[in-house]
Amino acid sequence: MDAKTFDAKSLLDTLFDKSILFKTGVDGLYGRSGVFEDVIERFERLVTSIGAPDKATRIHFPPGMSRATLEGSGYMKSFPQLAGCVHSFMGGEREHAQLLGMMAAGEDWTELQQATNVVLTPAACYPLYPTVAARGPVPDDGVLFELSSYCFRHEPSKDPARMQLFRMREFVRIGTAEQVCAFRESWLERGKAMIESLDLPCEVDLANDPFFGRGGKMMANNQRDEGLKFELLIPVTSIEKPTACLSFNYHRDHFGQTWGLKFADGSLCHSACVGFGLERVALALFRHHGPEVEAWPASVRDTLWGN
Amino acid sequence: MDAKTFDAKSLLDTLFDKSILFKTGVDGLYGRSGVFEDVIERFERLVTSIGAPDKATRIHFPPGMSRATLEGSGYMKSFPQLAGCVHSFMGGEREHAQLLGMMAAGEDWTELQQATNVVLTPAACYPLYPTVAARGPVPDDGVLFELSSYCFRHEPSKDPARMQLFRMREFVRIGTAEQVCAFRESWLERGKAMIESLDLPCEVDLANDPFFGRGGKMMANNQRDEGLKFELLIPVTSIEKPTACLSFNYHRDHFGQTWGLKFADGSLCHSACVGFGLERVALALFRHHGPEVEAWPASVRDTLWGN
Repeated sequence: MDAKTFDAKSLLDTLFDKSILFKTGVDGLYGRSGVFEDVIERFERLVTSIGAPDKATRIHFPPGMSRATLEGSGYMKSFPQLAGCVHSFMGGEREHAQLLGMMAAGEDWTELQQATNVVLTPAACYPLYPTVAARGPVPDDGVLFELSSYCFRHEPSKDPARMQLFRMREFVRIGTAEQVCAFRESWLERGKAMIESLDLPCEVDLANDPFFGRGGKMMANNQRDEGLKFELLIPVTSIEKPTACLSFNYHRDHFGQTWGLKFADGSLCHSACVGFGLERVALALFRHHGPEVEAWPASVRDTLWGN
Repeated sequence: MDAKTFDAKSLLDTLFDKSILFKTGVDGLYGRSGVFEDVIERFERLVTSIGAPDKATRIHFPPGMSRATLEGSGYMKSFPQLAGCVHSFMGGEREHAQLLGMMAAGEDWTELQQATNVVLTPAACYPLYPTVAARGPVPDDGVLFELSSYCFRHEPSKDPARMQLFRMREFVRIGTAEQVCAFRESWLERGKAMIESLDLPCEVDLANDPFFGRGGKMMANNQRDEGLKFELLIPVTSIEKPTACLSFNYHRDHFGQTWGLKFADGSLCHSACVGFGLERVALALFRHHGPEVEAWPASVRDTLWGN
């Protein structure tokens, strides 16, 4: 991976050539080698070990969630273009014959399906909030969860750092504004130190989510003005436009209001999360240290494989 | 979990009560506790260690795959009712306003989406075959892969052993009929010994896939007559109808023909796979050894956590 060809296509081609990623015929949808998976697993262990003193409660959700929950979350208002809804065939034998006939004729058979109650999870923490709300009032010292999930975003791209299906590890803190901001602050520091321990160049910057449409521009500006989102950026497929590999988000009481997350005294909870884009971090490592993990710097190998 | 109430509802309720699984509002779609995840991870390590002498190549695919690949596989012919196709909103601001209006009015907004090129993976090995075919001729001694993937099947159920999104670990052998049948035979033995080492009652039996419709009955009968599918069954939510936790499948040259998997001399490859239903095995362990993993038999704990 030559520094002179620091672009998305050359990185993706190198990863295909070295059998680190595998083509599936769909942009942003790739198979991963055992080596790639090992890097991801080792990085996850690093994240877990750095977060261990906080004693987070681990919880895991599958890559799909309730459609009603996504509808209730406001996601379709802000990011309709990224959501994925699972449709299935629910007909009988006659409709099945029609489906096979359409498929054989190269016609669009997908309209014969209907929406199920399942949508793909857009971020690891979305299924968490109603689960926490169902448990009753949040204790005074708040709660902290560790999550990991495959996430889907419909944005086909030849940039390997923009996959349609990717894994996100997250810590989510729910509590008072002070509690959740202190949590985010601590991860802004720990996250940067962690990435530097992997010998990767990075910077932390103010950021905004890709809100949909013209109205979205105002929401993005508000988000920036209020300092609600920071990203840790690493050059992966571009030096000018580095890739967000970690994000640090303060939701204020948005999810508290949406899902009725309250303390015993009835006051609304705030929340914050730190998200780790696992494929993006792995790609950054391959980009900067080369396709052969055996040849990575000793300090990086020791950080990942040392324990 | 009383032996007298050996049914799906009592198991599911117990798992909810003990915070081992979490409701999402959709049958077959649950959050998992950290303890549940730890059991799954430990069982995966056991599978990997038992399979290690075979030196499988590890490869991983995300929970979605190319729609064209699924169409080419014949899956929609045999199991159209189980497939999940990802639909996304691709409109502009006007259509978005319409979508939000319909959602607010409680109308069905999902028709405003279109099919993407992504479908949910129905079994871990489906994306593998075209990936192997793209590499050129299969070597004379065949190939062996180790896979793990979330899989989707649209069959909402209150039986916790029938989730809509679940994980499947698989070994897939591609080679001559003799090679792949010897592989399957070895796993029929190793799989049974492995489950017995976890102190779970089990039996191996001839089985068939849930082929769709009237024509499917004939396919199911053929599959049984030719001994193409065996399942390792453990009572999980019923003693009369034990749950298939492992399956051992010989595909003859079905995938060889479908994807052009050939040896250098042009002859078609056969294939076989062994699949491990990870949630089902975990549920079997909780069902038989109780909701508190600390109270599981010492031999079982040692098998899972001993190394």
